[in-house]
Amino acid sequence: MSVIEKHTSVEAQAIAAKKAAKKISLLSTEEKNEALHIIADTLEKNTSRILHANERDLQLGKEKGYDAAYMDRLALSKERIFDFAEGLRQVAKLEDPTGKILSNWTLDNGLLVEKVTVPLGVIGMIYEARPNVTVDATGLALKSGNAILLKGGSSALSSNKAIVEVMHEALNTTKIPKDAVQFIASTDREATQQLFTMKEHIDVLIPRGGGSLINAVVNNATVPVLETGVGNCHLYIDVEAEVEEALNILVNAKTDRPAVCNALETAIIHKEWLDKNKEQLINTLNEEGITVHGDETALSYFPDAILANEEDWANEYLSLDLAVKTVESVEEAIDHIERYGTKHSEAIVTENRDTAKIFMNLVDASALYHNASTRFTDGGALGFGAEIGISTQKLHARGPMGLPALTTVKFLMSGNGQTR
Amino acid sequence: MSVIEKHTSVEAQAIAAKKAAKKISLLSTEEKNEALHIIADTLEKNTSRILHANERDLQLGKEKGYDAAYMDRLALSKERIFDFAEGLRQVAKLEDPTGKILSNWTLDNGLLVEKVTVPLGVIGMIYEARPNVTVDATGLALKSGNAILLKGGSSALSSNKAIVEVMHEALNTTKIPKDAVQFIASTDREATQQLFTMKEHIDVLIPRGGGSLINAVVNNATVPVLETGVGNCHLYIDVEAEVEEALNILVNAKTDRPAVCNALETAIIHKEWLDKNKEQLINTLNEEGITVHGDETALSYFPDAILANEEDWANEYLSLDLAVKTVESVEEAIDHIERYGTKHSEAIVTENRDTAKIFMNLVDASALYHNASTRFTDGGALGFGAEIGISTQKLHARGPMGLPALTTVKFLMSGNGQTR
Repeated sequence: MSVIEKHTSVEAQAIAAKKAAKKISLLSTEEKNEALHIIADTLEKNTSRILHANERDLQLGKEKGYDAAYMDRLALSKERIFDFAEGLRQVAKLEDPTGKILSNWTLDNGLLVEKVTVPLGVIGMIYEARPNVTVDATGLALKSGNAILLKGGSSALSSNKAIVEVMHEALNTTKIPKDAVQFIASTDREATQQLFTMKEHIDVLIPRGGGSLINAVVNNATVPVLETGVGNCHLYIDVEAEVEEALNILVNAKTDRPAVCNALETAIIHKEWLDKNKEQLINTLNEEGITVHGDETALSYFPDAILANEEDWANEYLSLDLAVKTVESVEEAIDHIERYGTKHSEAIVTENRDTAKIFMNLVDASALYHNASTRFTDGGALGFGAEIGISTQKLHARGPMGLPALTTVKFLMSGNGQTR
Repeated sequence: MSVIEKHTSVEAQAIAAKKAAKKISLLSTEEKNEALHIIADTLEKNTSRILHANERDLQLGKEKGYDAAYMDRLALSKERIFDFAEGLRQVAKLEDPTGKILSNWTLDNGLLVEKVTVPLGVIGMIYEARPNVTVDATGLALKSGNAILLKGGSSALSSNKAIVEVMHEALNTTKIPKDAVQFIASTDREATQQLFTMKEHIDVLIPRGGGSLINAVVNNATVPVLETGVGNCHLYIDVEAEVEEALNILVNAKTDRPAVCNALETAIIHKEWLDKNKEQLINTLNEEGITVHGDETALSYFPDAILANEEDWANEYLSLDLAVKTVESVEEAIDHIERYGTKHSEAIVTENRDTAKIFMNLVDASALYHNASTRFTDGGALGFGAEIGISTQKLHARGPMGLPALTTVKFLMSGNGQTR
């Protein structure tokens, strides 16, 4: 059964994935790593085939009038495909997260208890245009002993299909059954609804994309969800912030890559600091081409600023726009973040350790920064090697999710007839 | 505002709980432990008041014709209330699960990264008749720095209200704000629906009760759920099982406390073993008063057995009934468990280590036993000190959930101006 034929039901695919997951869970680390290398090599050998499929997506995208940023995320090149392959080889180098004995102890009656990490089983990945997720998520899933159901955005359909076909050809020569990687080509609602509710076959859903995609999954899924990353990130510049440091961090967090989830969206500035450093701040923002949307007080400092409304505080710009909120205390800053933050990454700049401590203790987010840029909330930057997404929820995994987030545990008890 | 007044909205209660959660998160371990001791003492001092309220529930229960087991779970006594208090004192002795640095490292640029455990925030506990959950869950929530919203079964309404009133009086003399413990007295659908969907105020829902309660929460909640424990537990008696050991484990798992989730429901027996040991097995089952529901082959051995149907394989009996399935291999046993198991506790009896290994590797459940009774899946028995429930899901916490299951993590980054 070719798993990417249009008429294969999503349920049949999930069942096949579950069977395959059992087989992978028994493979050695070496066998899994070998498979990742073979997929990497096969992707490199088939670049022209993948690029040909990508052309079709780009053509359709042009006809539909997608914007430049969207087209850029969709577009592949020989270099990008080689990067995908290199990513798989990096994942092969990472420590196997399964089979680790997290703790073990013996009860008074002699029963040995071991808490051991095991794969989750079947992962459902739901994502938007970026075809790199097709490869990255597959690599992380297989390395951690899981099967994966891939449901990518329809705008990248041809590219994703070609990539999965190539990965299947590669898997045919490895110990990992190709059924471990399932691509859901159907774009109808029923297929999505099935994916959301097949608790008996799918162990977790991971949505990666914009807020509306993530909300659709969270609100409709009965399968457990690992919620990832809308980042409405804030930087609080305290009255005791060192000027150069504050400006460097602000510029870096806002302008380094404005479209990513760990980019800065709102600067919360202490009024006294603003009053003292307005000229330097205004010059810096102007030089960087940053558009300010400010509250009433901020408007009195920034002549070109736009008055901020509820939308400005609540949403990500993902552009060179910046909301500016003025406050008179760290508590007021914390309240604003509590109201509008998305529990992703929040930063404070201050020379006062006590103020920093209050901020770090009371702000509820996955990553908190004292005198550093929010841009470090990233599996690669933090040294996790690779990430399947950034969790903004509190259960299971929070912050950048590396391979261990794709495992669960089993308690294994060995006895010689113990009863209670 | 008295938080148990009938007209207080659930949303107002959740908001108050969230505020209180912040305050508890800043308390020291000693301050939290002191509060637990004060609650314990106050409960003991108010036994007659609680028993008086319990009388009302028992009276109503009698009028409604609840069965004896149900009435037993509902009934309180001086001893039971003293046990609740003792439970709180035990929780006070447990290690504080928050504020632990799970790992820390420094990036090449000097940025210090710490991964620290913190409270989840606000826990929503939804449970059935047992009033002990009102005290137990409160103790575990407060010790781990969380606030709690309690929604108990309507049949225990008076008892739960009295217990919460007493706990509030106790909290008035402690550092923990009484708003940290909220009792939802309203039994209308709207209140429940609010509880299921207030993602902005509630961090996790924990249902404890029968399958229909748990399914209602899982299917309707958008707040993340920690699913707990329906246990359709199996014991596989392999062809190489030692007879005495197998019979001891079977009897213990089935009869020690048939109504609990880690009790045995189905024995899967290798045909050769059954053929060799039928007399001893039949005598044992008869002596213990166990009623067999068997497949066709089993029926030929057990003259008094009832033919098992789909219901017998799929559901918990929670009584002295036992389903008996006969198989010819460990693989067949594993397939049966995969089809009907609830991923709670599964056991194998065999002298063959390789067979045991296959079983432990391939069966997907929170707890797996080789030559021991399923009855050990319990926070107390495993040495966790106390448990908030037994998780049968794979995310966040699996198996018995002690205090650490009520925490999440924060990544705290300290720098001196690092940018990316």
